[in-house]
Amino acid sequence: MNDTKYTIVFQPSGLRGKVDAGSTILNAARELGVSLESVCGGKGACGKCKVRIEEGEYRKYGIKSSVAATTTVDEVNSKYLSKQQLKQNYRLACQTKIVGDVVVFVPEESRKGQQVVRKEATARKIKLNPAVKKYYVELKPATLDDTTGDFERLAAALKSKYELTNLVLDYPVLLKLQNTVRQGKWNVTVSVWQDCEIVDVEAGEIKQSYGLAVDIGTTTVAGYLCELNTGNILATESMMNPQVAYGEDVMSRIGYATKEKDGLKKLNDAIIKGLNQIIRDITKRTGIKQDNIIDMAVVGNTCIHHLFLKIDPQYLGKAPFPPAIHHSVNVKARDLGLNIGDGAYVHVLPNEAGFVGADNVGVLIAEEPYKQDKMLLIIDIGTNGELILGNRNKLMSSSCATGPAFEGAEIRHGMRAAAGAIEKLKIERGTFDVEFKVIGNDKWNTEDKNIGARGICGSGIFDAAAQMFLTGLIDKSGRINMKIKSPRLRFDEGGIAEFVIAWAKETAINHDIVICQKDIRAIQLAKSAMYSGAKIMMDKMGVKKIDKVILAGAFGSYIDKASAATIGLFPDCGIGCVQAVGNAAGDGARIALLNKNKRDEADIWARRVEYVELTLEPNFNKYFTKALAFPHAEDKFPSLAGLLPEM
Amino acid sequence: MNDTKYTIVFQPSGLRGKVDAGSTILNAARELGVSLESVCGGKGACGKCKVRIEEGEYRKYGIKSSVAATTTVDEVNSKYLSKQQLKQNYRLACQTKIVGDVVVFVPEESRKGQQVVRKEATARKIKLNPAVKKYYVELKPATLDDTTGDFERLAAALKSKYELTNLVLDYPVLLKLQNTVRQGKWNVTVSVWQDCEIVDVEAGEIKQSYGLAVDIGTTTVAGYLCELNTGNILATESMMNPQVAYGEDVMSRIGYATKEKDGLKKLNDAIIKGLNQIIRDITKRTGIKQDNIIDMAVVGNTCIHHLFLKIDPQYLGKAPFPPAIHHSVNVKARDLGLNIGDGAYVHVLPNEAGFVGADNVGVLIAEEPYKQDKMLLIIDIGTNGELILGNRNKLMSSSCATGPAFEGAEIRHGMRAAAGAIEKLKIERGTFDVEFKVIGNDKWNTEDKNIGARGICGSGIFDAAAQMFLTGLIDKSGRINMKIKSPRLRFDEGGIAEFVIAWAKETAINHDIVICQKDIRAIQLAKSAMYSGAKIMMDKMGVKKIDKVILAGAFGSYIDKASAATIGLFPDCGIGCVQAVGNAAGDGARIALLNKNKRDEADIWARRVEYVELTLEPNFNKYFTKALAFPHAEDKFPSLAGLLPEM
Repeated sequence: MNDTKYTIVFQPSGLRGKVDAGSTILNAARELGVSLESVCGGKGACGKCKVRIEEGEYRKYGIKSSVAATTTVDEVNSKYLSKQQLKQNYRLACQTKIVGDVVVFVPEESRKGQQVVRKEATARKIKLNPAVKKYYVELKPATLDDTTGDFERLAAALKSKYELTNLVLDYPVLLKLQNTVRQGKWNVTVSVWQDCEIVDVEAGEIKQSYGLAVDIGTTTVAGYLCELNTGNILATESMMNPQVAYGEDVMSRIGYATKEKDGLKKLNDAIIKGLNQIIRDITKRTGIKQDNIIDMAVVGNTCIHHLFLKIDPQYLGKAPFPPAIHHSVNVKARDLGLNIGDGAYVHVLPNEAGFVGADNVGVLIAEEPYKQDKMLLIIDIGTNGELILGNRNKLMSSSCATGPAFEGAEIRHGMRAAAGAIEKLKIERGTFDVEFKVIGNDKWNTEDKNIGARGICGSGIFDAAAQMFLTGLIDKSGRINMKIKSPRLRFDEGGIAEFVIAWAKETAINHDIVICQKDIRAIQLAKSAMYSGAKIMMDKMGVKKIDKVILAGAFGSYIDKASAATIGLFPDCGIGCVQAVGNAAGDGARIALLNKNKRDEADIWARRVEYVELTLEPNFNKYFTKALAFPHAEDKFPSLAGLLPEM
Repeated sequence: MNDTKYTIVFQPSGLRGKVDAGSTILNAARELGVSLESVCGGKGACGKCKVRIEEGEYRKYGIKSSVAATTTVDEVNSKYLSKQQLKQNYRLACQTKIVGDVVVFVPEESRKGQQVVRKEATARKIKLNPAVKKYYVELKPATLDDTTGDFERLAAALKSKYELTNLVLDYPVLLKLQNTVRQGKWNVTVSVWQDCEIVDVEAGEIKQSYGLAVDIGTTTVAGYLCELNTGNILATESMMNPQVAYGEDVMSRIGYATKEKDGLKKLNDAIIKGLNQIIRDITKRTGIKQDNIIDMAVVGNTCIHHLFLKIDPQYLGKAPFPPAIHHSVNVKARDLGLNIGDGAYVHVLPNEAGFVGADNVGVLIAEEPYKQDKMLLIIDIGTNGELILGNRNKLMSSSCATGPAFEGAEIRHGMRAAAGAIEKLKIERGTFDVEFKVIGNDKWNTEDKNIGARGICGSGIFDAAAQMFLTGLIDKSGRINMKIKSPRLRFDEGGIAEFVIAWAKETAINHDIVICQKDIRAIQLAKSAMYSGAKIMMDKMGVKKIDKVILAGAFGSYIDKASAATIGLFPDCGIGCVQAVGNAAGDGARIALLNKNKRDEADIWARRVEYVELTLEPNFNKYFTKALAFPHAEDKFPSLAGLLPEM
């Protein structure tokens, strides 16, 4: 063991500290709380953690370097950094080890934006039948003639007034029972879970009852504080999933949990700490005590589900990918370290399969395709893409890796939906002028030049691909047409074609924001996965035509429906039959919180949905290849007549 | 706040440390782990914490003193210390505050003996039907064609092989499920609690199943490690109840928990730490893993029950003394901080009343008076005395404060049943010579003078009273007959009559061990409480004659039956009908561990036994006064004809 430590200073934040010799700059940033992008989780696979070494010594693959010396640059750094950047001592923080005191500059584009969390709850009519209900009782005071214990006194009152029998008392409630009974002058309100267990006792008559619905996304986490008698949402609180620091996508996190020392513990701690932050903020804002949150319902994909529960996710990372459990889990908040009522349960919705988790089940119970006659295709676009096809007769689900591109990763100037992200854009036919709208600025850039752009986020990427296709900047195969004359069309120093979306002067990062040929390819891969998945399920079910497409996922609400249809995200369906329903997974958590019957429904349907493992389907590769084209190599889109270019 | 600290050194151990100015010497001893008797828990009510101030400054009731100065001595110290001792700077540690650096000597008699814990399990035939059972299953491995999750796979196997359905999985089991399944090559053994919850999973086929029965006495704690399939006791481990440091009897502990800062926490921590020690020792000795203890059953009196569960015991300390709960409690070992299987439950037997607890219920299910035709009187002699009277027609119970005297407290040379305690003695008629037997020495003192005696314990005190009565040293009223000529009979410096049991040269403490008039009074009070309790219950039930007396409690096994009958511990019953059954409470814990039906029986009978609050009975004082006499002022003892002196 080497106990040597070196000082590292991050600019412009000025954060500094001592770190172990041999740490990477990325790890140092994590330790010191420096905001530094790391989409791939430190594997040298995303190129987002660029930093500039200002002073000092560092090491890359055994070669000790200092800013004064010309350093040998390895393959990974040269893949993501231009020659110019390398000369200026730009390096990938995850690939660079500290071998001496060092000063590091974090450029604007590598700083993590505070993502705009777009997980507003949707207005839905929810039937109320919460798992936790309150009962007020007046007890007979103990006397020397009747020295019966408090619990028996309480049980007798609950039986005589509400016919509740065989109740058990959760341990923390037992601890406070006697003091509470006396504080309430023998009048108390108990919270009963599933008609069988007393999970709280309060002095006097208390009517309000609070629960928290939580949607843990791969990237963002949202909590909805609800009053259980009315179903009202009292407050919504959201944050980036703090696990992002350990890997952007679920596979990186499975890798981190499996391979790094205490990896699972760190990932679990991160989300528990994050949720406790949400609980603190949401209760502070509403003036409710944390202890008074007496129920909680949680959705998340299967990997997130496992990491949240601290279940080793390694088997989700290798074939045949079985989850630890499908069935919903009821676990005490205290066993998870969540700071709500001591006796409160956390209800985690069931998983459908290794790659279709409780979040998709949330969508299921929110959209109820199993009660519909119409043939529905539900597309849940998050960091992972999930598909549900079917109606009351049959349901299928599948999962495809779309996330990274739609979320801005693997895209040269891609970024998350944070302030400074180009979220919408239009390209003018003929002139190829671009108008764009940046998150954090209400106006489009038509007149006054918006100088806030830092990159392009998912919905902007959809628009870019669709608009480039409609204006002929790319052809059906996705190739950028360099024959078009425009200053925006050019080759980069590596000879890759690119189209300028925003000129350097229009940005906050002082260089052009472009969509390049590689970006288009990444979008094609992602959308083709979705389309092929839908097609395979349609084949299996014998469905020729979809009646309705539901775009779920908060992100889905921001996608331009026409852009999505234009690039061929899903098989033919009229734009009018495409509906964005917002964060249906989060709504599902809320529904499960407010209606225990829906928990049962979730357990039933999670097992009834037939999961289709797309990668095992013999037709998948054929379908996938054909769906790479814009909008598709062969399929017709009669519903989009007039919208698509003639081909 | 005063932050001043002083150094205190304890001799002869040499233990030293800094303590807050104003701490008592007793508190300093507790903090530094110095073995110092404190029967009353620091209230100045037992006189057992005598220490000698060697050097330095201390303060008693506002008067600052040093060893050089002649100090004013208050009432409490002068009650327990002779003038000689006061002059030698002996003080009660609990009454003396530290106001400067100080050196303190702890005399031999004030050091805590390692009590001989007499809680051997009794050989009893127990019907086996444990609450936790093991089931071995072979699962189908997951394949790409069948990616069902592990829990569902397990549930299906348990259903098809054993018809177990609707099982839930405890959270810690979920965490290790997948790794265990693969470690066992898809063959696992699950432990199922009460046919409803999977509380453990082990790789491969495991037959042995372990449980721990625990008897938490006010003074001693015993654990019995059992194999659940055979009922065999693999090992017994016992210790002093570490709560003794905070008060010898339950009322002192209730006071400590209620009035001292973090009092409840300290008392709870003490017993949990003690039990974890027992768990560590018992598993080490048997080579079993702590994690493999998968069930636990616990008995203790109501106060001990509350302190073990960390329930505020304040309401047990004031009228009308209602417990928090009568019903048995099932709580996860992890919620209590007990280091056994992560998923294991701890079953705590039910309480009958505020002063008749789960230990008495243990006696009930062990002795089953509710299945007998004979009229039984069960006397459980521990630190508290508990009585059960009845048969299959009706049962009553009551509680009386006998403990302190029988356990050696409030007796001038009383001590616990530790090495050096005189446990048996005989007094010769006419000569008044005494033979005694000391714990730790197999031989009586007839020939070779045993020099180990340090005091007299419960069974010795019974013998002393009975023998003094039978030899005429005390009369029926309990008065010592000073007219008898014997060097052993004398007055102490305060004019109190005393009888020498052991001469200084026969002891380890270099002074005579005596029974004094006050001691006889204390024994009378204790035995009269027992007798009167039995009489009141007999009256209430219309019972004239008891068919059988059962002496329960480990202590009961060591009492000479004739001595107990002679002093009038219970109404007339032939010696041949008196049976000592050993630690029936501990046996009850073991029975509950091994047979879940007995848990139900315990819950039923705990509520059916009619609790009699003796202090509320109008006849109690009259009965009590009459029962003070040896063996009784009025009652006849025809069954003891020939044994008792003619009167």
